[in-house]
Amino acid sequence: MEKINVSLQILPLVGDDELYPVVDRVIEYIQKSGVKYVIGPMETTMEGSFEQCMAIVKRAHEICLEAGVPRVGSVIKTDVRKTGVTIDEKVGKYR
Amino acid sequence: MEKINVSLQILPLVGDDELYPVVDRVIEYIQKSGVKYVIGPMETTMEGSFEQCMAIVKRAHEICLEAGVPRVGSVIKTDVRKTGVTIDEKVGKYR
Amino acid sequence: MEKINVSLQILPLVGDDELYPVVDRVIEYIQKSGVKYVIGPMETTMEGSFEQCMAIVKRAHEICLEAGVPRVGSVIKTDVRKTGVTIDEKVGKYR
Amino acid sequence: MEKINVSLQILPLVGDDELYPVVDRVIEYIQKSGVKYVIGPMETTMEGSFEQCMAIVKRAHEICLEAGVPRVGSVIKTDVRKTGVTIDEKVGKYR
Repeated sequence: MEKINVSLQILPLVGDDELYPVVDRVIEYIQKSGVKYVIGPMETTMEGSFEQCMAIVKRAHEICLEAGVPRVGSVIKTDVRKTGVTIDEKVGKYR
Repeated sequence: MEKINVSLQILPLVGDDELYPVVDRVIEYIQKSGVKYVIGPMETTMEGSFEQCMAIVKRAHEICLEAGVPRVGSVIKTDVRKTGVTIDEKVGKYR
Repeated sequence: MEKINVSLQILPLVGDDELYPVVDRVIEYIQKSGVKYVIGPMETTMEGSFEQCMAIVKRAHEICLEAGVPRVGSVIKTDVRKTGVTIDEKVGKYR
Repeated sequence: MEKINVSLQILPLVGDDELYPVVDRVIEYIQKSGVKYVIGPMETTMEGSFEQCMAIVKRAHEICLEAGVPRVGSVIKTDVRKTGVTIDEKVGKYR
Protein backbone atom coordinates (compact mmCIF):
# COMPACT_ATOMS: atom_id res chain seq x y z
CA MET A 1 0.00 0.00 0.00
CA GLU A 2 1.07 3.52 -0.77
CA LYS A 3 0.80 6.42 1.67
CA ILE A 4 -2.50 6.51 3.47
CA ASN A 5 -4.23 9.00 5.76
CA VAL A 6 -4.88 8.03 9.37
CA SER A 7 -6.70 10.25 11.85
CA LEU A 8 -6.28 9.66 15.57
CA GLN A 9 -8.44 10.95 18.38
CA ILE A 10 -6.97 9.70 21.64
CA LEU A 11 -9.41 9.39 24.56
CA PRO A 12 -7.67 8.94 27.91
CA LEU A 13 -10.08 8.28 30.78
CA VAL A 14 -8.87 11.03 33.11
CA GLY A 15 -10.26 14.09 34.86
CA ASP A 16 -11.11 17.07 32.67
CA ASP A 17 -8.13 19.03 34.05
CA GLU A 18 -5.72 16.22 33.18
CA LEU A 19 -7.02 15.68 29.65
CA TYR A 20 -5.07 18.26 27.65
CA PRO A 21 -1.69 17.54 29.30
CA VAL A 22 -2.00 13.86 28.34
CA VAL A 23 -3.25 14.61 24.81
CA ASP A 24 -0.41 17.14 24.40
CA ARG A 25 2.14 14.42 25.12
CA VAL A 26 0.66 12.33 22.33
CA ILE A 27 0.63 15.28 19.91
CA GLU A 28 4.26 16.09 20.83
CA TYR A 29 5.17 12.50 20.02
CA ILE A 30 3.43 12.66 16.63
CA GLN A 31 5.18 15.96 15.86
CA LYS A 32 8.55 14.30 16.46
CA SER A 33 7.67 11.09 14.63
CA GLY A 34 8.57 12.31 11.17
CA VAL A 35 5.21 11.72 9.50
CA LYS A 36 3.33 14.56 7.85
CA TYR A 37 0.49 15.60 10.14
CA VAL A 38 -2.31 18.13 10.67
CA ILE A 39 -3.55 18.89 14.20
CA GLY A 40 -7.29 19.46 14.45
CA PRO A 41 -9.67 20.18 17.34
CA MET A 42 -10.91 16.58 17.55
CA GLU A 43 -8.14 14.52 15.93
CA THR A 44 -4.69 14.61 14.39
CA THR A 45 -4.38 13.36 10.82
CA MET A 46 -1.20 11.63 9.68
CA GLU A 47 0.11 10.75 6.22
CA GLY A 48 2.34 7.68 6.00
CA SER A 49 2.37 3.96 5.47
CA PHE A 50 -0.17 1.78 7.29
CA GLU A 51 2.61 0.33 9.48
CA GLN A 52 4.13 3.73 10.25
CA CYS A 53 0.81 5.27 11.28
CA MET A 54 -0.35 2.28 13.34
CA ALA A 55 2.99 2.11 15.18
CA ILE A 56 2.36 5.73 16.18
CA VAL A 57 -1.21 4.87 17.23
CA LYS A 58 0.10 2.02 19.38
CA ARG A 59 2.73 4.26 20.99
CA ALA A 60 0.03 6.90 21.63
CA HIS A 61 -1.86 4.37 23.74
CA GLU A 62 1.32 3.42 25.60
CA ILE A 63 2.16 7.08 26.31
CA CYS A 64 -1.21 7.41 28.05
CA LEU A 65 -0.79 4.22 30.08
CA GLU A 66 2.76 5.25 31.07
CA ALA A 67 1.36 8.61 32.24
CA GLY A 68 -0.77 6.68 34.71
CA VAL A 69 -4.03 6.73 32.75
CA PRO A 70 -6.06 3.66 33.80
CA ARG A 71 -7.91 3.24 30.52
CA VAL A 72 -7.60 4.78 27.08
CA GLY A 73 -9.73 4.60 23.97
CA SER A 74 -9.27 6.01 20.51
CA VAL A 75 -11.09 6.74 17.30
CA ILE A 76 -8.97 6.03 14.23
CA LYS A 77 -10.11 6.79 10.70
CA THR A 78 -8.30 5.62 7.57
CA ASP A 79 -8.41 6.67 3.92
CA VAL A 80 -6.69 4.25 1.52
CA ARG A 81 -6.16 4.07 -2.25
CA LYS A 82 -3.90 1.72 -4.22
CA THR A 83 -2.16 4.78 -5.64
CA GLY A 84 -1.98 6.60 -2.30
CA VAL A 85 -3.91 9.38 -0.55
CA THR A 86 -2.44 12.74 0.47
CA ILE A 87 -3.58 15.27 3.04
CA ASP A 88 -2.93 17.98 0.48
CA GLU A 89 -5.40 16.68 -2.12
CA LYS A 90 -8.09 17.08 0.53
CA VAL A 91 -7.39 20.35 2.29
CA GLY A 92 -4.89 22.09 0.01
CA LYS A 93 -7.59 24.27 -1.53
CA TYR A 94 -8.95 25.29 1.88
CA ARG A 95 -5.60 26.58 3.18
CA MET B 1 -26.26 22.90 27.06
CA GLU B 2 -23.69 25.50 26.19
CA LYS B 3 -21.70 25.53 22.97
CA ILE B 4 -20.36 22.13 22.05
CA ASN B 5 -17.92 20.83 19.45
CA VAL B 6 -19.21 18.55 16.72
CA SER B 7 -16.98 16.99 14.05
CA LEU B 8 -18.53 15.71 10.85
CA GLN B 9 -16.98 13.36 8.31
CA ILE B 10 -19.51 12.86 5.52
CA LEU B 11 -19.20 9.62 3.55
CA PRO B 12 -21.20 9.63 0.31
CA LEU B 13 -21.18 6.27 -1.49
CA VAL B 14 -20.01 7.52 -4.89
CA GLY B 15 -17.16 6.93 -7.29
CA ASP B 16 -13.74 8.23 -6.25
CA ASP B 17 -13.91 10.98 -8.91
CA GLU B 18 -17.28 12.20 -7.61
CA LEU B 19 -16.28 12.22 -3.93
CA TYR B 20 -14.65 15.64 -3.53
CA PRO B 21 -17.32 17.56 -5.51
CA VAL B 22 -20.02 16.18 -3.19
CA VAL B 23 -17.98 16.77 -0.03
CA ASP B 24 -17.18 20.30 -1.24
CA ARG B 25 -20.91 21.07 -1.44
CA VAL B 26 -21.28 20.05 2.19
CA ILE B 27 -18.27 22.11 3.26
CA GLU B 28 -19.61 25.13 1.32
CA TYR B 29 -22.89 24.75 3.19
CA ILE B 30 -21.12 24.63 6.58
CA GLN B 31 -19.07 27.70 5.63
CA LYS B 32 -22.28 29.63 4.96
CA SER B 33 -24.12 28.28 8.01
CA GLY B 34 -22.78 30.84 10.46
CA VAL B 35 -21.21 28.41 12.95
CA LYS B 36 -17.53 28.61 13.78
CA TYR B 37 -15.74 25.78 11.97
CA VAL B 38 -12.35 24.26 11.18
CA ILE B 39 -11.87 22.21 7.99
CA GLY B 40 -9.57 19.21 8.38
CA PRO B 41 -8.42 16.43 6.06
CA MET B 42 -10.86 13.87 7.49
CA GLU B 43 -13.62 15.96 9.10
CA THR B 44 -14.92 19.46 9.68
CA THR B 45 -15.33 20.55 13.30
CA MET B 46 -18.12 22.94 14.26
CA GLU B 47 -18.74 24.99 17.41
CA GLY B 48 -22.38 25.71 18.25
CA SER B 49 -25.38 24.42 20.12
CA PHE B 50 -26.33 20.76 19.87
CA GLU B 51 -29.42 21.67 17.82
CA GLN B 52 -27.51 24.01 15.51
CA CYS B 53 -24.79 21.47 14.75
CA MET B 54 -27.17 18.53 14.28
CA ALA B 55 -29.39 20.57 11.93
CA ILE B 56 -26.27 21.11 9.82
CA VAL B 57 -25.44 17.40 10.00
CA LYS B 58 -28.96 16.55 8.83
CA ARG B 59 -28.76 19.05 5.97
CA ALA B 60 -25.35 17.60 5.00
CA HIS B 61 -26.99 14.22 4.48
CA GLU B 62 -29.79 15.80 2.45
CA ILE B 63 -27.31 17.70 0.25
CA CYS B 64 -25.73 14.36 -0.70
CA LEU B 65 -29.06 12.67 -1.42
CA GLU B 66 -30.20 15.68 -3.49
CA ALA B 67 -26.96 15.43 -5.49
CA GLY B 68 -28.05 11.94 -6.51
CA VAL B 69 -25.94 9.97 -4.03
CA PRO B 70 -27.73 6.64 -3.38
CA ARG B 71 -26.42 6.16 0.16
CA VAL B 72 -24.51 8.33 2.60
CA GLY B 73 -22.92 7.65 5.95
CA SER B 74 -21.19 9.89 8.43
CA VAL B 75 -18.95 9.87 11.45
CA ILE B 76 -19.92 12.51 14.00
CA LYS B 77 -17.91 13.17 17.16
CA THR B 78 -19.11 15.39 19.99
CA ASP B 79 -17.37 17.10 22.91
CA VAL B 80 -19.70 18.46 25.59
CA ARG B 81 -19.29 20.25 28.95
CA LYS B 82 -21.94 21.93 31.08
CA THR B 83 -19.95 25.13 30.80
CA GLY B 84 -19.25 24.78 27.09
CA VAL B 85 -16.35 23.62 24.91
CA THR B 86 -14.51 25.81 22.40
CA ILE B 87 -12.39 24.91 19.39
CA ASP B 88 -9.89 27.50 20.53
CA GLU B 89 -9.16 25.88 23.91
CA LYS B 90 -8.06 22.80 21.99
CA VAL B 91 -6.07 24.03 19.01
CA GLY B 92 -5.35 27.67 19.86
CA LYS B 93 -1.84 26.87 21.03
CA TYR B 94 -1.07 24.85 17.88
CA ARG B 95 -1.95 27.66 15.47
CA MET C 1 -35.75 10.84 5.05
CA GLU C 2 -36.87 7.30 5.78
CA LYS C 3 -35.59 5.24 8.69
CA ILE C 4 -31.87 5.50 9.14
CA ASN C 5 -29.31 3.70 11.29
CA VAL C 6 -27.48 5.65 13.98
CA SER C 7 -24.77 4.16 16.19
CA LEU C 8 -23.88 5.84 19.46
CA GLN C 9 -20.79 5.31 21.59
CA ILE C 10 -21.07 7.56 24.61
CA LEU C 11 -17.79 8.57 26.25
CA PRO C 12 -18.25 10.07 29.72
CA LEU C 13 -15.01 11.42 31.22
CA VAL C 14 -15.17 9.55 34.53
CA GLY C 15 -13.08 7.07 36.48
CA ASP C 16 -12.89 3.53 35.12
CA ASP C 17 -15.08 2.22 37.98
CA GLU C 18 -17.79 4.79 37.23
CA LEU C 19 -17.86 4.19 33.47
CA TYR C 20 -20.26 1.25 33.14
CA PRO C 21 -22.86 2.61 35.59
CA VAL C 22 -23.13 5.82 33.55
CA VAL C 23 -23.16 4.00 30.21
CA ASP C 24 -25.81 1.61 31.59
CA ARG C 25 -28.08 4.58 32.34
CA VAL C 26 -27.81 5.66 28.71
CA ILE C 27 -28.49 2.12 27.44
CA GLU C 28 -31.50 1.82 29.77
CA TYR C 29 -32.83 5.07 28.32
CA ILE C 30 -32.40 3.82 24.74
CA GLN C 31 -34.13 0.55 25.65
CA LYS C 32 -37.15 2.49 26.89
CA SER C 33 -37.15 4.97 24.01
CA GLY C 34 -39.17 2.82 21.62
CA VAL C 35 -36.65 2.73 18.76
CA LYS C 36 -35.32 -0.56 17.47
CA TYR C 37 -31.78 -1.05 18.80
CA VAL C 38 -28.85 -3.46 19.01
CA ILE C 39 -26.40 -3.22 21.93
CA GLY C 40 -22.79 -3.91 21.00
CA PRO C 41 -19.50 -3.87 22.93
CA MET C 42 -18.47 -0.45 21.62
CA GLU C 43 -21.74 1.20 20.56
CA THR C 44 -25.51 0.85 20.44
CA THR C 45 -27.12 1.02 17.00
CA MET C 46 -30.60 2.51 16.62
CA GLU C 47 -33.09 2.41 13.75
CA GLY C 48 -35.44 5.38 13.45
CA SER C 49 -35.83 8.80 11.88
CA PHE C 50 -32.94 11.25 11.97
CA GLU C 51 -34.84 13.44 14.47
CA GLN C 52 -35.80 10.51 16.70
CA CYS C 53 -32.24 9.16 16.89
CA MET C 54 -30.61 12.56 17.42
CA ALA C 55 -33.08 13.43 20.19
CA ILE C 56 -31.92 10.24 21.92
CA VAL C 57 -28.29 11.17 21.33
CA LYS C 58 -28.90 14.60 22.87
CA ARG C 59 -30.66 13.07 25.88
CA ALA C 60 -27.77 10.60 26.27
CA HIS C 61 -25.39 13.52 26.74
CA GLU C 62 -27.76 15.16 29.25
CA ILE C 63 -28.09 11.92 31.25
CA CYS C 64 -24.31 11.92 31.69
CA LEU C 65 -24.16 15.59 32.70
CA GLU C 66 -27.06 15.11 35.14
CA ALA C 67 -25.17 12.16 36.67
CA GLY C 68 -22.39 14.61 37.54
CA VAL C 69 -20.04 13.79 34.66
CA PRO C 70 -17.94 16.91 33.98
CA ARG C 71 -17.40 16.26 30.28
CA VAL C 72 -18.82 13.79 27.79
CA GLY C 73 -17.95 12.94 24.21
CA SER C 74 -19.54 10.60 21.73
CA VAL C 75 -18.94 8.87 18.44
CA ILE C 76 -22.02 8.76 16.26
CA LYS C 77 -22.17 6.93 12.93
CA THR C 78 -25.03 7.24 10.46
CA ASP C 79 -26.18 5.15 7.49
CA VAL C 80 -28.76 6.85 5.27
CA ARG C 81 -30.61 5.96 2.05
CA LYS C 82 -33.56 7.75 0.41
CA THR C 83 -35.50 4.50 0.68
CA GLY C 84 -34.40 3.75 4.24
CA VAL C 85 -31.82 1.51 5.91
CA THR C 86 -32.64 -1.31 8.34
CA ILE C 87 -30.53 -3.05 10.96
CA ASP C 88 -31.90 -6.35 9.71
CA GLU C 89 -30.58 -6.01 6.15
CA LYS C 90 -27.12 -5.75 7.65
CA VAL C 91 -26.96 -8.33 10.43
CA GLY C 92 -30.01 -10.52 9.79
CA LYS C 93 -27.91 -13.19 8.12
CA TYR C 94 -25.38 -13.24 10.95
CA ARG C 95 -27.98 -13.88 13.67
CA MET D 1 -0.41 -4.53 26.47
CA GLU D 2 -2.98 -7.14 27.38
CA LYS D 3 -5.99 -7.99 25.24
CA ILE D 4 -7.75 -4.94 23.90
CA ASN D 5 -11.02 -4.33 22.08
CA VAL D 6 -10.90 -3.03 18.52
CA SER D 7 -14.01 -2.20 16.48
CA LEU D 8 -13.76 -2.00 12.71
CA GLN D 9 -16.24 -0.42 10.31
CA ILE D 10 -14.89 -0.90 6.80
CA LEU D 11 -16.06 1.64 4.22
CA PRO D 12 -15.35 0.56 0.63
CA LEU D 13 -16.18 3.24 -1.95
CA VAL D 14 -18.41 1.12 -4.20
CA GLY D 15 -21.97 1.14 -5.48
CA ASP D 16 -24.72 0.38 -2.98
CA ASP D 17 -25.34 -3.04 -4.56
CA GLU D 18 -21.66 -3.99 -4.25
CA LEU D 19 -21.31 -2.87 -0.64
CA TYR D 20 -22.50 -5.94 1.32
CA PRO D 21 -20.59 -8.50 -0.84
CA VAL D 22 -17.33 -6.65 -0.14
CA VAL D 23 -18.09 -6.16 3.57
CA ASP D 24 -19.06 -9.85 3.82
CA ARG D 25 -15.61 -10.85 2.54
CA VAL D 26 -14.04 -8.83 5.32
CA ILE D 27 -16.36 -10.33 7.94
CA GLU D 28 -15.62 -13.83 6.65
CA TYR D 29 -11.93 -13.11 7.03
CA ILE D 30 -12.38 -11.91 10.63
CA GLN D 31 -14.46 -15.01 11.42
CA LYS D 32 -11.60 -17.23 10.25
CA SER D 33 -8.88 -15.14 11.91
CA GLY D 34 -9.12 -16.78 15.32
CA VAL D 35 -9.83 -13.64 17.36
CA LYS D 36 -12.96 -13.38 19.46
CA TYR D 37 -15.43 -11.11 17.66
CA VAL D 38 -18.96 -9.71 17.72
CA ILE D 39 -20.64 -8.67 14.46
CA GLY D 40 -22.82 -5.57 14.73
CA PRO D 41 -24.86 -3.53 12.25
CA MET D 42 -22.23 -0.81 11.91
CA GLU D 43 -18.97 -2.48 12.98
CA THR D 44 -17.34 -5.73 14.06
CA THR D 45 -15.63 -5.72 17.45
CA MET D 46 -12.56 -7.88 18.02
CA GLU D 47 -10.74 -8.93 21.20
CA GLY D 48 -7.02 -9.58 20.87
CA SER D 49 -3.61 -7.97 21.09
CA PHE D 50 -3.02 -4.60 19.44
CA GLU D 51 -0.81 -6.25 16.80
CA GLN D 52 -3.28 -9.06 16.11
CA CYS D 53 -6.22 -6.69 15.65
CA MET D 54 -4.32 -4.16 13.53
CA ALA D 55 -2.97 -6.93 11.26
CA ILE D 56 -6.61 -7.89 10.64
CA VAL D 57 -7.53 -4.25 10.01
CA LYS D 58 -4.70 -3.97 7.47
CA ARG D 59 -5.75 -7.18 5.73
CA ALA D 60 -9.37 -5.89 5.66
CA HIS D 61 -8.22 -2.91 3.62
CA GLU D 62 -6.22 -5.18 1.28
CA ILE D 63 -9.22 -7.49 0.77
CA CYS D 64 -11.20 -4.50 -0.48
CA LEU D 65 -8.45 -3.28 -2.80
CA GLU D 66 -7.94 -6.82 -4.16
CA ALA D 67 -11.70 -6.99 -4.86
CA GLY D 68 -11.24 -4.02 -7.18
CA VAL D 69 -12.44 -1.31 -4.80
CA PRO D 70 -10.73 1.96 -5.84
CA ARG D 71 -10.73 3.53 -2.38
CA VAL D 72 -11.53 2.30 1.10
CA GLY D 73 -11.88 4.03 4.44
CA SER D 74 -12.47 2.69 7.91
CA VAL D 75 -13.49 3.73 11.38
CA ILE D 76 -11.53 1.93 14.08
CA LYS D 77 -12.25 2.31 17.79
CA THR D 78 -10.02 0.97 20.54
CA ASP D 79 -10.52 0.29 24.25
CA VAL D 80 -7.30 -0.35 26.19
CA ARG D 81 -6.40 -1.05 29.83
CA LYS D 82 -3.08 -2.18 31.29
CA THR D 83 -4.89 -5.21 32.72
CA GLY D 84 -6.85 -5.93 29.55
CA VAL D 85 -10.39 -5.30 28.30
CA THR D 86 -12.88 -8.01 27.36
CA ILE D 87 -15.97 -7.94 25.17
CA ASP D 88 -17.77 -9.94 27.84
CA GLU D 89 -17.35 -7.36 30.62
CA LYS D 90 -19.21 -4.93 28.40
CA VAL D 91 -22.06 -6.85 26.83
CA GLY D 92 -22.23 -10.04 28.89
CA LYS D 93 -25.14 -8.74 30.95
CA TYR D 94 -27.09 -7.70 27.85
CA ARG D 95 -26.96 -11.14 26.23
